[in-house]
Amino acid sequence: MKATVYAGNKTFSVVEKEIEAPVAGDVRIKVAYCGVCGTDVHIYHGMMDKRVQIPQIIGHEMSGIIDAVGDGVTDFKVGDKITVRPLDNRGEVDSDKGYSHIAKKLKFIGIDSPGAMQQYWNVPAFTLHKLKESTDLKLAALIEPLSVACHDVRRGGLKAGETAVVSGGGPIGLLVALVARSKGANVIISEVNDIRVKMAEGMGFDVVNPMKNNLVEYVDKKTNGALADVVFEVAGVQASLDITTEVVGIRGRIVLVAIYGEAKPVNLFKFFWKELTLIGARVYEKEDYEESIQLITENKYPFERIITDTKPLDQIQQLFESIDTTPEGMKFLVDCQ
Amino acid sequence: MKATVYAGNKTFSVVEKEIEAPVAGDVRIKVAYCGVCGTDVHIYHGMMDKRVQIPQIIGHEMSGIIDAVGDGVTDFKVGDKITVRPLDNRGEVDSDKGYSHIAKKLKFIGIDSPGAMQQYWNVPAFTLHKLKESTDLKLAALIEPLSVACHDVRRGGLKAGETAVVSGGGPIGLLVALVARSKGANVIISEVNDIRVKMAEGMGFDVVNPMKNNLVEYVDKKTNGALADVVFEVAGVQASLDITTEVVGIRGRIVLVAIYGEAKPVNLFKFFWKELTLIGARVYEKEDYEESIQLITENKYPFERIITDTKPLDQIQQLFESIDTTPEGMKFLVDCQ
Ligand SMILES: NC(=O)c1ccc[n+]([C@@H]2O[C@H](COP(=O)([O-])OP(=O)(O)OC[C@H]3O[C@@H](n4cnc5c(N)ncnc54)[C@H](O)[C@@H]3O)[C@@H](O)[C@H]2O)c1
Ligand SMILES: NC(=O)c1ccc[n+]([C@@H]2O[C@H](COP(=O)([O-])OP(=O)(O)OC[C@H]3O[C@@H](n4cnc5c(N)ncnc54)[C@H](O)[C@@H]3O)[C@@H](O)[C@H]2O)c1
Ligand SMILES: [Zn+2]
Ligand SMILES: [Zn+2]
Repeated sequence: MKATVYAGNKTFSVVEKEIEAPVAGDVRIKVAYCGVCGTDVHIYHGMMDKRVQIPQIIGHEMSGIIDAVGDGVTDFKVGDKITVRPLDNRGEVDSDKGYSHIAKKLKFIGIDSPGAMQQYWNVPAFTLHKLKESTDLKLAALIEPLSVACHDVRRGGLKAGETAVVSGGGPIGLLVALVARSKGANVIISEVNDIRVKMAEGMGFDVVNPMKNNLVEYVDKKTNGALADVVFEVAGVQASLDITTEVVGIRGRIVLVAIYGEAKPVNLFKFFWKELTLIGARVYEKEDYEESIQLITENKYPFERIITDTKPLDQIQQLFESIDTTPEGMKFLVDCQ
Repeated sequence: MKATVYAGNKTFSVVEKEIEAPVAGDVRIKVAYCGVCGTDVHIYHGMMDKRVQIPQIIGHEMSGIIDAVGDGVTDFKVGDKITVRPLDNRGEVDSDKGYSHIAKKLKFIGIDSPGAMQQYWNVPAFTLHKLKESTDLKLAALIEPLSVACHDVRRGGLKAGETAVVSGGGPIGLLVALVARSKGANVIISEVNDIRVKMAEGMGFDVVNPMKNNLVEYVDKKTNGALADVVFEVAGVQASLDITTEVVGIRGRIVLVAIYGEAKPVNLFKFFWKELTLIGARVYEKEDYEESIQLITENKYPFERIITDTKPLDQIQQLFESIDTTPEGMKFLVDCQ
């Protein structure tokens, strides 16, 4: 079998490996597709070399078919279409209060242990979610990032008829916007990159470029002064963070999806004045995966538009190089078949 | 009748005024006690001269007895013991989404219009809450700040058995701590002023001075690593704000009680990592007043200890001067009888 290996310093190699039998409790998956996450790009850029044990097989946004099952695995059988929820919570303790997905000793499979960018992948059965026979395996590589979006929308408690602003129209922002639409919310996307603005418009969204138009006035007008009920901060820049407290109305909720490495100024006066809530969101829980699988299987929304390019396993180096030269590209997939 | 008037530039005068008949919808109150709020001290210091129409009668933390009722007032009668919820929401509109207490055009009675530091006070009947015959009128001057505390605790969703850290043991912090105790929470107060530390300890609280001891380690130990479920930021300083994201555990809630005039750095990484929630809280709603009245009437907690000093109406100037020279003083009352 072929596997790709991150070897450090912006370099992947493709290696030959033995196909291994799954140990007890594990399954072996014949990987179909594996998406490239923003985190994978960070790894490629050497920004996570302290955490990633080089050489390492990475990748966690995948779909596949069960190829062999280890002892004691009863809920899954060879031939099942599946995806993996790449969270290893075996270190969970009481003080994690039952929040397995953010347990203190959580390990992320595909970062802290080998990932899916290979032909066959062995993982514990508890990470698996079954897909339907009708689920498209290519689209299914979007289930992981879409689950992030389902989690974010759920954390925000978004309801039908509410107005949601999604600040940042990258892959995660667009998926958040699609999930928000599926809830019956009125969605406005704020995005500064004109190619991405066009892309979001092409998916039927109401889009504002806040560098060219006044986003707050726009939302104010659209809502007769009520402003947004929920804002998703998915851009990860100060200008976007700053606008969240302005564009949200009384008792508004701000869902923090973007990851900020350091402390950032936040307009706390607005939190007091309008009784705002800031809600942190990290990855997903079981029910988010279930919702995401349902959405991908029904395929009522233009998910396929988010896929910019797909390359076979042995072109992984070119794939990561092309990501760097295509900043407005969205989701890139590795075809592992 | 006598009234006190804030005349600008750290000066109050005591004036003679006609007793006025209440207009339709209003009542006239014979004021019993009126507490001095932090806001009143700000006004005295000239920091709100842009908002307050000088000369102005201020004060909003009061108790009293109805002395006359205007036309159309049916729910209240002469002799009723009452307190006022000093929020005038007559400018409320649809885009306020039903949150009357933080409506965009809300006026605060006693700041934006005449207040209670006088012998008789006319107010709209819709601001009134009835007290019990058994309610102590002096303690009843604490109902307004205690309602703030009830609101904060309710916004934080604090439940019995949870651990609450109250950062800042001033009057509001102590009241928050008492309400948290009334919910059956395990309360830890963090306070840097040793006189206030002693005071909080005297009220039976577990108190840490974070300048002398490691608060996070203390709470970690007490909770077997689970850390706080809810933190109330009631100090209003960066060091306190910084510790909130450290001392709170997974899915912890941070209730922002202190008012920050400008944007402050917040550790957003922790919001992501532990899925924290930051909850803005401003004044109170009707149900908070009801809870607060109940607590003051039952008088099961040492509320009276919060009252540092009481002076008659005509010593108002001395009262405000003594507040400035007694920084660890808690609540000062004006006896308006
Ligand atoms: N919470 C989680 O568990 C989780 C999971 C996955 C990703 N993330 C985070 O989500 C964020 C978004 O991920 P992504 O892959 O879509 O990233 P991305 O960088 O592709 O998307 C960000 C978008 O924001 C736009 N933008 C920049 N400045 C803006 C502004 N002022 N206003 C509006 N838009 C602006 C950019 O043009 C870009 O399109 C990242 O911070 C990522 O780390 C979080
Ligand atoms: N949200 C609302 O509607 C509302 C209503 C009333 C008051 N407030 C605000 O609540 C806050 C508290 O009011 P107060 O009257 O009790 O004020 P206060 O200034 O008397 O109390 C603050 C306390 O924090 C302590 N402190 C300072 N640094 C600290 C630190 N690093 N750690 C722990 N404690 C520290 C101080 O010693 C002081 O005892 C103020 O900011 C006030 O404006 C808000
Ligand atoms: Zn991912
Ligand atoms: Zn007050």
